[in-house]
Amino acid sequence: MSTQNQHKIIGKSECRVDAWGKVTGRAKFAEDYNVGHQLWGKVLRAKHPHAKILKIDTSKAEKVAGVEAVLTAKDIPGSKVFGIVVSNQAILAEDKVRYLGDGVALIAAKTEEIADEALSLIEVEYEPLLVVTDPEEAMNPETIKIHGDDNTFVHHKVRKGDVDKGFAEANFILEKKFKTQFVEHSYIEPEAVLAEPAEQGGVRVTGSVQNLFSTRRSTAAALNLPLNKVQIIQATLGGSFGGKDEAMTSMCIRAALLCLKTCKPVKMVNTREESMLESYKRHPYTLYYKWGVKNDGTITAMEIRIIADGGAYASMSPFVTWRSVVQATGPYYCDNVKTDIYAVYTNNNYTGAMRGFGSPQVNFAIESMMDILAEKVGKDPLEIRLQNGFERGAITATGQNLEHNVSLKEVLQKATAEINFQEKWKKYRSEPNTQKKRGIGLACSYRGVSLGAEGTDAVGTIISVQTDGSVIVSSGITDMGQGAQTQMSQIAAEVLGISMDRIQFLNTNTSRVPDSGPTVASRGTIMGGSAAKKAAEIVQATLLTTASEMTGLDVQSLELKDNYLIDIESGQRLASFNELAAECFKKGRPTYGFGWHKSPKTSWDEDHGQGEAYFTWVYGANIAEVEVDTETGKVDVLNFVSCHDVGKAINRGAVLGQIYGGVAMGLGYGLLEEFEIENGIPKQLNFDEYSLPTSMDVPKIKAIVVENEDALGPFGAKSIGEPANELAAPAIINAIYNATGKRIYELPANLERVLLGHKLVRPKERGSVLKEKDIQAAMHRAVYELLPDGTFYAEIPGLQGVYANAKSLEECREQLQEVLEKEVA
Amino acid sequence: MSTQNQHKIIGKSECRVDAWGKVTGRAKFAEDYNVGHQLWGKVLRAKHPHAKILKIDTSKAEKVAGVEAVLTAKDIPGSKVFGIVVSNQAILAEDKVRYLGDGVALIAAKTEEIADEALSLIEVEYEPLLVVTDPEEAMNPETIKIHGDDNTFVHHKVRKGDVDKGFAEANFILEKKFKTQFVEHSYIEPEAVLAEPAEQGGVRVTGSVQNLFSTRRSTAAALNLPLNKVQIIQATLGGSFGGKDEAMTSMCIRAALLCLKTCKPVKMVNTREESMLESYKRHPYTLYYKWGVKNDGTITAMEIRIIADGGAYASMSPFVTWRSVVQATGPYYCDNVKTDIYAVYTNNNYTGAMRGFGSPQVNFAIESMMDILAEKVGKDPLEIRLQNGFERGAITATGQNLEHNVSLKEVLQKATAEINFQEKWKKYRSEPNTQKKRGIGLACSYRGVSLGAEGTDAVGTIISVQTDGSVIVSSGITDMGQGAQTQMSQIAAEVLGISMDRIQFLNTNTSRVPDSGPTVASRGTIMGGSAAKKAAEIVQATLLTTASEMTGLDVQSLELKDNYLIDIESGQRLASFNELAAECFKKGRPTYGFGWHKSPKTSWDEDHGQGEAYFTWVYGANIAEVEVDTETGKVDVLNFVSCHDVGKAINRGAVLGQIYGGVAMGLGYGLLEEFEIENGIPKQLNFDEYSLPTSMDVPKIKAIVVENEDALGPFGAKSIGEPANELAAPAIINAIYNATGKRIYELPANLERVLLGHKLVRPKERGSVLKEKDIQAAMHRAVYELLPDGTFYAEIPGLQGVYANAKSLEECREQLQEVLEKEVA
Repeated sequence: MSTQNQHKIIGKSECRVDAWGKVTGRAKFAEDYNVGHQLWGKVLRAKHPHAKILKIDTSKAEKVAGVEAVLTAKDIPGSKVFGIVVSNQAILAEDKVRYLGDGVALIAAKTEEIADEALSLIEVEYEPLLVVTDPEEAMNPETIKIHGDDNTFVHHKVRKGDVDKGFAEANFILEKKFKTQFVEHSYIEPEAVLAEPAEQGGVRVTGSVQNLFSTRRSTAAALNLPLNKVQIIQATLGGSFGGKDEAMTSMCIRAALLCLKTCKPVKMVNTREESMLESYKRHPYTLYYKWGVKNDGTITAMEIRIIADGGAYASMSPFVTWRSVVQATGPYYCDNVKTDIYAVYTNNNYTGAMRGFGSPQVNFAIESMMDILAEKVGKDPLEIRLQNGFERGAITATGQNLEHNVSLKEVLQKATAEINFQEKWKKYRSEPNTQKKRGIGLACSYRGVSLGAEGTDAVGTIISVQTDGSVIVSSGITDMGQGAQTQMSQIAAEVLGISMDRIQFLNTNTSRVPDSGPTVASRGTIMGGSAAKKAAEIVQATLLTTASEMTGLDVQSLELKDNYLIDIESGQRLASFNELAAECFKKGRPTYGFGWHKSPKTSWDEDHGQGEAYFTWVYGANIAEVEVDTETGKVDVLNFVSCHDVGKAINRGAVLGQIYGGVAMGLGYGLLEEFEIENGIPKQLNFDEYSLPTSMDVPKIKAIVVENEDALGPFGAKSIGEPANELAAPAIINAIYNATGKRIYELPANLERVLLGHKLVRPKERGSVLKEKDIQAAMHRAVYELLPDGTFYAEIPGLQGVYANAKSLEECREQLQEVLEKEVA
Repeated sequence: MSTQNQHKIIGKSECRVDAWGKVTGRAKFAEDYNVGHQLWGKVLRAKHPHAKILKIDTSKAEKVAGVEAVLTAKDIPGSKVFGIVVSNQAILAEDKVRYLGDGVALIAAKTEEIADEALSLIEVEYEPLLVVTDPEEAMNPETIKIHGDDNTFVHHKVRKGDVDKGFAEANFILEKKFKTQFVEHSYIEPEAVLAEPAEQGGVRVTGSVQNLFSTRRSTAAALNLPLNKVQIIQATLGGSFGGKDEAMTSMCIRAALLCLKTCKPVKMVNTREESMLESYKRHPYTLYYKWGVKNDGTITAMEIRIIADGGAYASMSPFVTWRSVVQATGPYYCDNVKTDIYAVYTNNNYTGAMRGFGSPQVNFAIESMMDILAEKVGKDPLEIRLQNGFERGAITATGQNLEHNVSLKEVLQKATAEINFQEKWKKYRSEPNTQKKRGIGLACSYRGVSLGAEGTDAVGTIISVQTDGSVIVSSGITDMGQGAQTQMSQIAAEVLGISMDRIQFLNTNTSRVPDSGPTVASRGTIMGGSAAKKAAEIVQATLLTTASEMTGLDVQSLELKDNYLIDIESGQRLASFNELAAECFKKGRPTYGFGWHKSPKTSWDEDHGQGEAYFTWVYGANIAEVEVDTETGKVDVLNFVSCHDVGKAINRGAVLGQIYGGVAMGLGYGLLEEFEIENGIPKQLNFDEYSLPTSMDVPKIKAIVVENEDALGPFGAKSIGEPANELAAPAIINAIYNATGKRIYELPANLERVLLGHKLVRPKERGSVLKEKDIQAAMHRAVYELLPDGTFYAEIPGLQGVYANAKSLEECREQLQEVLEKEVA
């Protein structure tokens, strides 16, 4: 029996708890915070993407009237670097700058204008260094180092079975290279903070911060303060998408430094240009996929090598790439797996958390591979996925036994049925060549829920029923627009039997709630919601005990519903919720619940890349129907189906919103968005040049919400925020192939790439030169492909611009060797 | 065995947790809060102490440029009145004004100057009414009414035994009248608030508020909002002494009204004159004490009638007078008690909570009576108190069995021994008349701890150990300078085995902690501290469980001490507290404790004035040694002994501070302070005219701290804040008698009263006239006294100015009747 009807609030599209404030303009974003006598803080940023700092002369700036502080790295009392995993990110560059976004000095002044003037008077002497922007080049031991001894700072692996044996068993090998781009988070609100001196020492920072607790940790370390002397308060966030983490940490630390130096409040606000220049991006990946495959479509081996461009700093790269390595083989059976992923420092913008967190990149490769495989063995995209896709009890590449309801086939079937996928797919691939060609593409995925074995995974949520029956909720989970507060409120309202209008949700404050980890990994509902449920149950117990005393009835015969205390048997209203709350107060009973939820156990063996990586998983399938203008390369997405098993939709409207937004963002990833960096210099610093999808680009989206309630989620809920964003790009790419027969190996599928098909664009001359002794090794790494036009294509992974195209495999091989030799000469 | 040595933190004079902020100037008092674009709020106050409002014309004020709102009572969306017990206090006077402090209209303007200008342009038409300023006159049914049908709004009683029988058993009757004055709280910081629009509707008010939850309740009611939409945040308080309750409630409501009207932040700050004009005072009491006494000093009956001047509004009068009625007979055995106390409306400043809360007034009467009794029966003040004083198992006037350690005799003996009381007392009373005469006086008391049967008595305190081992504490108990935060921190530190520097205490915020009632009744340590102890114990349990897992040792063999985890047997340090906190975080365990402490049961039968009024009691004895200049009336206090059983001194320095401050304040009450109101018009509105004791007036104070640990207090602690303030005045008055033989019946014992002795000063002509038919009734109420000079004195309680003084009782009686008849004519 469905439990749908039992719920009063769960599942309903209740109005968001933050809606009123946002609609009326009363919501306070970080820039809206002002106090008396506040100073303006400004950052002087690097002039070179990679350079030694020889001298910083701030004397002229200090003399400007109205300047109250000029700080450089030497003025930082505590740790001069921060970083959640690798602590090497400069708060202010000291010895050298590593990318153009690096901060070099800080100004606090009475007005923004004075601060700007002072900034222009700081003199920095640099000695420019070689700029490394290609991560594969950066891995070369002879390349100039950005940090320490090795630019490669992450290597995760997964080892399962024996890939050599698997390849031996294969009828043929599929070997492909994929590339993804830098992507900007593109939140509406650029970064802003207000730092104020705290009364008993330390500092209170209100800002557009996504992850308050890690920001607090880094700020405390920089200021040499204990955690309780640094209070980080979340202002209402104008979007984050994973982006307001380290970018905000550095801003919070800088504002706090200026604040404690001047003993005055200091405000800092980034312009859009500053934001895009400094902030981290989604990782560009280079992905080498090699599959051993049988003629029937069975996958016997997967060997995967991925290089992530970490940019100037480590940021979340270790975690992002870990999710990638766990999920790199997709939800498909394969006994022999060898996956290696590397993250490498370059002088590009650093890269970190962004919605999807390592999934969008690998899903693009996996789902492209799956369609390539289908093509090779003469099956359609659905058939090949149903053939290889996981079912309950499947053992993943990391050795995890999926003992829950594995709904991959359900989402695939529901999505494809919705749009007559197979029929359309067959029809479009055989249509004659015209200027405008239609195609349909499918992609599916599984995704580990919450943090997984990456670290501690626990959340605190506090529910306090006031003496008049109104309710205050706060949580360690941050709402950045995704609706976490609304989900937690619905869960609390359901348990307490009250209407949503009774709930006041407070923005997160590090001094109010315990460290609940980051709000990432789509864990808001499953973790924060579970904590909310526990908190509400604590209060519910107190209310019902008191109700039992009031009425003389057993607790079991009473329930809270529709803002009343109800006698279950008769349905009679015995007292209002308000009266009950007042009675508890009168009796001196606390109607306060601290709910704490710790995730079920996960495990990870880093050496063998094996373990129960995530405690549960979600499954999704997306279908894009496109029209390609074969003369311009323009791709219009006409229709989209997005089917996701969310466990339980706590707020149906919010789930749909996540799906619509996720698809739109995924469409941008697939077709439009690319943050281009040339020799370490970003080419776009505002939205006039960085192409985001507009409402005109977004198709009609049919969202299908599958609800297989998960025992490990509150009311069965799992997650949707990121799953909704990780499949649009491969679905679109597969649809372009269906329409044109041309496969796109590099994102985004912009006009040029759609016109050129699979071919990699020859990059500009690079500085590196191959050594003669490497030619043989390089040739061993070559990959070959039979193109739709019957010719053969060859390239060497890691060597952009070295490629060949010929009528026969032999000819292609010879041609490739010639190109290589020319490169060396 | 004393537990003293077992404690590491408890009992030590640890540095106050708020010291750093106050010493460095970083503490933010309410006036220090500023935000961008804030408006200034100002109040137009009444022009008459009692008048009908015929018309308010705000049109001219509205037209002033920069004025953003002009509000009168009609603009209040919710309740137009507030009041914790009796809800009739006008937020803004609507129909009439009842005292000069009443607010009539509000202005919000861009600057203070504009607001002042606009205020002067509001035109109010009044119809003046008769002004009633004598509470006994106000009780007359024919007097003009201030609220409703009856000016008498409180009548509490205590009935025990049979007073008629008691008086019949007596050898003689002692019948006396005492009067006390209006007293200003005299906090350093006048009232201030900043109200800001809250993001999701409602308002956030930061202010110098003592009792946040009642202020929230009243503000929410006035704004028609649920409690969760009104957030009251305690700014650092510059003193309160019970005074920042209703005075702040009205200011908070007014600022909130202006804020919600303008949708802008509004700041309001009272000048000292505004503060003294509007704020409530300590109640003036008129006390009629009639004791039946045996020749051996045994008290056979006590009949007590007290009239409290409530002023224009009820405020805390019902609770203040309740404490008085419970404690009115003092810590003395008496089987037959009849006590009645009334609170009456007048057009004076309203009266409410002030340090002592109904004790200072009755203690003045009781302890004067006790010395009068001693004199009559030829005993000394110590003997008579030891004879009649309570011991364990005593049954109080309200029928409560004192089953705890009743240390009245211990404090009496310790105090008197310290200063050779009996010897000095005997010596001084027999010294020849000179200009300067010395005297010594004793007073003692018992005092019910915490709220008692007045209402719900429960407190929440939250302790959260951060991942680095630093600690955040918050509580529903407010620190207004008394040190509650330090006491609670010491308790937390003791339980957690950490040093005090690890604790960060946050000011109270109604949205952070559950309604914990008011911070009054010296309940901070016993209630807030008990909650802190429970909270700390919750965290301690988690820490030790984790420690046990870390070390493999039993929880019982481990302890937390000196910031380390210790193996009890070996004394070895196994891990630092920081490491242990980090380990809990790593394991996903919450180091968060919500401690809730509900007081033990109390009871009260209002009809019979019987019950277990308080769950425990404290005992104190004070001795004043004075020098009286018999020519000028000036009294110098030379030495002072203050002995109090505090249960357990959590912070010895803080206890001493409370004692020193309490004595100084009590000295002001006894000798200097009087807020004079003439025909409803205050005569002093600043400290140039209102006499506070200065450091020159305060003697050397010997504090004796007795520690009989109470099972119902945290680590045995009870209270000291108010006890320290309630005995100085009677001790001084008794010392003056010892020096001069003149008894002071009316406080303060200023120069005139010391010179005149007991005689009541004839007041100015009053408006009221006695009716002929009342003469007989009035004569029945007459009280007589044999004065030290051998003459008889008579007066009629409730009829100031009607008195007589003659050589014989008969003559005195006739003379009184003549005065009465003249009054009627």
